[in-house]
Amino acid sequence: MKRLTCNLALAALLLPGAAVAASDAPADVAWDFVAWDFVAGLTSEVGQRLAGSEAEARGRVWAAEKLKALGFKGVVIEPASTRAYVRGTDMAKLVSPVPQLLAVTALGFSGATPEAGIEADVVYFASLADLKAVPAGSLAGKIVFLDHAMKAAQDGGGYGPYGQARREGPAVASTKGAAAIVIRSIGTDSHRNPHTGGTTFPAGIAPIPAGAISNPDADMLVWLVGKGKALRLSLTLTGKTAESLPTGNLIGDLPGRNPALPPILLACHLDSWDLGTGAVDDGAGCAIITAAALKAQSGRQTLRTIRVLMAGAEEISAAGGAAYAKAHPERHALAMESDSGADRVWRAELKFAPANAALADKVAAALAPLGIPRGKGSVEGGADIGPVIAAQKLAVIDLNQDMTRYFDLHHTPDDTLDKIDRAALAQNVDAWAAVLGVVANAAEDIAAVE
Amino acid sequence: MKRLTCNLALAALLLPGAAVAASDAPADVAWDFVAWDFVAGLTSEVGQRLAGSEAEARGRVWAAEKLKALGFKGVVIEPASTRAYVRGTDMAKLVSPVPQLLAVTALGFSGATPEAGIEADVVYFASLADLKAVPAGSLAGKIVFLDHAMKAAQDGGGYGPYGQARREGPAVASTKGAAAIVIRSIGTDSHRNPHTGGTTFPAGIAPIPAGAISNPDADMLVWLVGKGKALRLSLTLTGKTAESLPTGNLIGDLPGRNPALPPILLACHLDSWDLGTGAVDDGAGCAIITAAALKAQSGRQTLRTIRVLMAGAEEISAAGGAAYAKAHPERHALAMESDSGADRVWRAELKFAPANAALADKVAAALAPLGIPRGKGSVEGGADIGPVIAAQKLAVIDLNQDMTRYFDLHHTPDDTLDKIDRAALAQNVDAWAAVLGVVANAAEDIAAVE
Repeated sequence: MKRLTCNLALAALLLPGAAVAASDAPADVAWDFVAWDFVAGLTSEVGQRLAGSEAEARGRVWAAEKLKALGFKGVVIEPASTRAYVRGTDMAKLVSPVPQLLAVTALGFSGATPEAGIEADVVYFASLADLKAVPAGSLAGKIVFLDHAMKAAQDGGGYGPYGQARREGPAVASTKGAAAIVIRSIGTDSHRNPHTGGTTFPAGIAPIPAGAISNPDADMLVWLVGKGKALRLSLTLTGKTAESLPTGNLIGDLPGRNPALPPILLACHLDSWDLGTGAVDDGAGCAIITAAALKAQSGRQTLRTIRVLMAGAEEISAAGGAAYAKAHPERHALAMESDSGADRVWRAELKFAPANAALADKVAAALAPLGIPRGKGSVEGGADIGPVIAAQKLAVIDLNQDMTRYFDLHHTPDDTLDKIDRAALAQNVDAWAAVLGVVANAAEDIAAVE
Repeated sequence: MKRLTCNLALAALLLPGAAVAASDAPADVAWDFVAWDFVAGLTSEVGQRLAGSEAEARGRVWAAEKLKALGFKGVVIEPASTRAYVRGTDMAKLVSPVPQLLAVTALGFSGATPEAGIEADVVYFASLADLKAVPAGSLAGKIVFLDHAMKAAQDGGGYGPYGQARREGPAVASTKGAAAIVIRSIGTDSHRNPHTGGTTFPAGIAPIPAGAISNPDADMLVWLVGKGKALRLSLTLTGKTAESLPTGNLIGDLPGRNPALPPILLACHLDSWDLGTGAVDDGAGCAIITAAALKAQSGRQTLRTIRVLMAGAEEISAAGGAAYAKAHPERHALAMESDSGADRVWRAELKFAPANAALADKVAAALAPLGIPRGKGSVEGGADIGPVIAAQKLAVIDLNQDMTRYFDLHHTPDDTLDKIDRAALAQNVDAWAAVLGVVANAAEDIAAVE
């Protein structure tokens, strides 16, 4: 295929010494190159793609051109809107016992400080439970420093419970009367890179300035607290919440031999947080589904259409996924999402109706040669496909990626291209294509899952 | 010893679950605790210690109190002065082909941009040699982006040749007429943390704004250059050079049984760059020499005095080492310096006069049980002991640390306490104490090395 030749030529340019001629390159190498070229281009030629920003819009246009060039049909951008956070100046400085600049980021939907910042004494809490336990109003005028103990795990399981410090901690601090809050970053690394992410102030709870400091900075504050030192902090977080900014979903199809059959939906999100360039979250996901869809069609056109959804505004509001479900009530067959980085698929979780047990077994059999076992847990889907799954009770397959490293990078300045392991990226493409080889060629009805 | 008991009690606090009682703790554990407590305290209770700053002065006072508490005698701060760099605002933004914020730091002695920054087209050079090859004046009004290809190595050997891009590149760019220069950070990591460090503008060459961007940012620019894109950069580096600021050396002795014998000099530097907290560069070195000196005296007082020199302003001017040599013409026996991080000692290089061949063999024999071989290369000494070595032709021992990771952290915001491996720190203390057990008890004359 012409488009493959072009990508191989590009790949040869990117890999001095690789000397891969288009004519004799193994197909497996080629699809890796398509995925790599996608995420390298998106992160380098567009960069960060904050939800609601002009950069997110540029990302949609860039990816639309890329999908067209790769042979996708019906490529369309469907506009939507999102509540969003527009970053301002982020600065935190320990004032006493010793002056130290801290690596800080505002959380999405943080309240704003004045331009000159605020300065206040700090009250330390080792956990969200400890913060919840103090009386309402008891922290008047204070800055809360909220700690937690998240650890790295293959299934990323710490993000749920420990992530509550970010999602819920600022609102809880507000109810206690705090002037502001800084949390230990929700992450498992040890670099001077803070982790941003959205927080929530429910109706009736006044937003307060809310930031996250890097783990090394948090360690240093904890050391001082352990020494009995009183901490005083200066905090400047001037970003603002915008109630409605433009976002949008990008859709492209690889038509099946029978376009009347409900399509297979593959999703990722095209927006990113703004500190890094959104390589592992979620440029890699968009690269994987794009390359895998092409690989699945490379031998013979699949029976069913494979649809790629690159959603907007996942990070801040999940508005893209909701807009897609509303705009597309037409029947889908099955949905899958890639949004856990670029490390290897280690397990598959399948959710099918009982009538499709044989099809599920075929999917598991296709993954077995890749050493990917079928799990016995539940599927999670993801924010981009959650609404359409809920609306249509879709069958779902999760290809679980190894998330041990994911929360080292998640929502940090360090989410950049160099963090992607090309061999792992290729393994993802292989795994997705193996699944598509089964489900996109399934002639049987893929039933709703009650 | 009372001071040891105190440190063990502290250590027990720091290590929940360790449950080490002072009375039954093995001595090897204790000295590790002393080293760890030193570098943890210095980095947390003082933080960054930029040469010439009030923070460096606070560091001297903190460390002087620590040495006194640990039992050092004759603890004194000897004032000196240094040429220095006072950081301002550092900001770099790719303007075209796409807007992207870059992680940047000014280099020490950089020229200053106006407060509003400058904006110019970028000219890419893959190496310093390429930059040198263009005609004088040919880069008028341009911003140079200077790349290099430094790799990690056990002996840190890339820092010499590739570090020239930082040390010499800005002056070369100035002679070519460039308006400013940004270099790929002199480092081997892949994080959004730029590496600062000093540069030099020889007399007659006008300083120009000179910064370093992180490796992921440099990768992204290289990708765009490879795509044939024209780059345009906005650069704001407002820091200023100060011709004379106060610095100082901290000295403390553990007196020997025969104080008339020339002492053994152990050195580190107490200043640091300002982006991190100076844990591996060089808080760890000061921690190692302090703990090793105490360990060497813990069984029986050594024959010779062990002197600890914690030098000032090593990073920016090496003024501390020069001031020490000038102020201390009295005869020394031997000098050693720890300034390559906190990773394991893997080799020892010894420089003794031929008359001391037997003593050198005893040093090598003391290190053999620790698995540290004697090298066949030359010694390097270091900036803090270089002047006194030159003035007195001193014998020198280098305990080479594994520097594979060192230039991941060197001069970055990421040089923080968490990067120190406690087991490796303990191995350093053991190695230094083993050497001191020989040389600080040497009754024979330790001769000058011609």
